Amino acid sequence: MTSIPQMNAEVLQQAQQQIQRDLQTALDAFSIPEPLKSAVNHAVMLGGKRVRPALCYATSNLSTKNSNFAAVRRAAVAIEMIHCYSLAHDDLPCMDNDLLRRGQPTCHVAFGEDTALLAGDILQSMAFEVLGSRLFDTGVAVDGAIVLKQMQILATASSKMVCGQVLDLQAEGKHVDQEHLETIHRNKTGALIQAAIMMAAVTIFSGTDQAIPKLRQFGQAIGLAFQVQDDILDVTASTETLGKTAGKDEQVDKSTYPALMGLEQAQAYAQQLHDQAFDALKYFGENAQDLNQISRFLLSRKS
Amino acid sequence: MTSIPQMNAEVLQQAQQQIQRDLQTALDAFSIPEPLKSAVNHAVMLGGKRVRPALCYATSNLSTKNSNFAAVRRAAVAIEMIHCYSLAHDDLPCMDNDLLRRGQPTCHVAFGEDTALLAGDILQSMAFEVLGSRLFDTGVAVDGAIVLKQMQILATASSKMVCGQVLDLQAEGKHVDQEHLETIHRNKTGALIQAAIMMAAVTIFSGTDQAIPKLRQFGQAIGLAFQVQDDILDVTASTETLGKTAGKDEQVDKSTYPALMGLEQAQAYAQQLHDQAFDALKYFGENAQDLNQISRFLLSRKS
Repeated sequence: MTSIPQMNAEVLQQAQQQIQRDLQTALDAFSIPEPLKSAVNHAVMLGGKRVRPALCYATSNLSTKNSNFAAVRRAAVAIEMIHCYSLAHDDLPCMDNDLLRRGQPTCHVAFGEDTALLAGDILQSMAFEVLGSRLFDTGVAVDGAIVLKQMQILATASSKMVCGQVLDLQAEGKHVDQEHLETIHRNKTGALIQAAIMMAAVTIFSGTDQAIPKLRQFGQAIGLAFQVQDDILDVTASTETLGKTAGKDEQVDKSTYPALMGLEQAQAYAQQLHDQAFDALKYFGENAQDLNQISRFLLSRKS
Repeated sequence: MTSIPQMNAEVLQQAQQQIQRDLQTALDAFSIPEPLKSAVNHAVMLGGKRVRPALCYATSNLSTKNSNFAAVRRAAVAIEMIHCYSLAHDDLPCMDNDLLRRGQPTCHVAFGEDTALLAGDILQSMAFEVLGSRLFDTGVAVDGAIVLKQMQILATASSKMVCGQVLDLQAEGKHVDQEHLETIHRNKTGALIQAAIMMAAVTIFSGTDQAIPKLRQFGQAIGLAFQVQDDILDVTASTETLGKTAGKDEQVDKSTYPALMGLEQAQAYAQQLHDQAFDALKYFGENAQDLNQISRFLLSRKS
C-alpha cells in the first residue's frame, strides 16, 4: 500500500506553465477568423488541470536522453486541443447543457452554439495539424515514423473518446454494472489519458521495449482512477471548488462509482487503482519521479 | 474556349462504386456502439456525388505506374469522411437547420442532435485513423513519409473548411464583394477539393515536380467552379432534383454568385473557371482524361 504524502504538484505547475505557453504559441500560428478565434481561445486558454500534457511531459522524462522533446511538446498541445474540443461539445445544449466550466461561461454561452460547435470542430483538426507541423523544432526535424505513430495513437483515442461518450449517454437512467461502467470510462476519459502517455512513450521507446506494456498498465490504472476520483468529487465537492456544476451526475441519474458501490468503497477503489499505477512505475525506478508525483496529486486533488 | 460535350460520367460512376465499397469496408473495420454506428452509416453511406474521392482516384491515374493505390484509396475514404462529418454538423439546428439531405432525413432528424453531433465528431477522427491504417494494403506498406504528408494536407484542409464555414455565417445578410466571396469558398469547399487532389498527388509526384503547381492550379479552379455551380443550382433546380432544400440561399440571405453578379454572369464565370481547370490539365496530356471527364461532368451537372 502506497502512502499518500502531502500534495506536491511542483511538476504539475511546471507542466501547466509549459503547456499554457505552448498552446498560446500554437494558437498564434493559426490564422482563424473571428469570432472563431476568440471562441477557440476561450475553449483552450481558460486553464484546467492540464493533466494530459503533464503526463505527456512526465513520460518523456523517463529517459534522460530524449532528443525528441519538440515532438513531445506538439503531442501535449495536440492532446489538450482534443480534450478542449470534447469539453466544448460536451457542454452544448444538445449534450450536457452546461453553463459553467472552469468557473467561466461555457463556450456556447459566451459565443453561441454555432460558434462553439465550430470551435470544437476546428480544434480537432488543429490538433492533427500541430502534430504534423514543425512547431517547437530546433534544428533537425523529428523522425517522421514517430510522428505517424503519434497521429495513429491520437486518432484512435479520439474515436474511442466519442464512443465512450455515446456509451455514457446510453447508460443514463439505467442500472449499469461495474464492468460496463469501466468500459465507458476506459473509452470516455481513459483512452485520451493513455494516449497522452503513449504519444510521449513512442518518442523514447521502441515498440518492443518492455517499458511499453508497463506504461500501458500505468495509463489504464491512472485513467480509471482519474474518473473514479471525478465521480467522488462530484458528490463531495462544491460547485465553487470544482469550477463546474457539482451534483450534476445525480441530477441526470448518471451511473457513477459512488452510486454503484457507495462513497467509501469508491474511495477505496480509487486508492487500489492508484496502487496499481504506482506498481507499474516501479519498473522505471528513480526516472519515474515525475509520473509518481502527478499520480499522487491526482489521488489527493480536491477539484 | 472548351466545348461541353454530353455528360459522360463513366469515370464518376466507377469512382462511386469504388468509394461506396471502400467506405463500407472502412466502417466495418471500426467497433462503434449503437446508435452511433447507425448514425455514422447514415451520414456516410447515403450516397452523394462523391466528387472528392473521384478527383482523388483520377489524380492518381495521372501516372500509369502508381504503386501506392492503397494510400489513394485510404485518402479517398478519409476525405469523404471529413466531407460527411461537415454535412452532419452543417445540418444541425444551431447551423443550417436542414431537414433533408440527399433526399433523406438529415442525421439529427433521424438520430437526434446529440448523436448527430457525435457522429460528426467521430467521423473526423476516423478519417485520420483510416489514413494512418494499413487498410487496403497489399503486401508492402506504403512509405510513412507519404502518409504523413497526406495527414498534413487533410488536417490543414479540414481546419480551412471550418474557417470558411465561419466566414460564410458572418457574411449572411451582409453585402459581400467577389473577392470576399472567393475567400469564403476557397476555404469552405475549395480546400477539401484541393486536398482530395493533393493527397493523391503526393503518392505519385515529388514535392519539386512541376506537376504539383499545375494540380494546385487545377484544384483551385475546379473547387471554385464547383461552388459557383452549386450557387447556380440552388436558384435553378428543384428540391426534388437536388435532394436537399432548394432556394435555401436566398431564404437566409446568403451571398451567392447569382446574387452578386446575376445568373447569366455567374454561368459565364463557372465556364471561365472550368476553362482555367482544363488549361492546367493540358500539362498532363492524355493521362488527364479522367480528370477532364470529371471536370466536364461538374460543369454540366443538374444536381
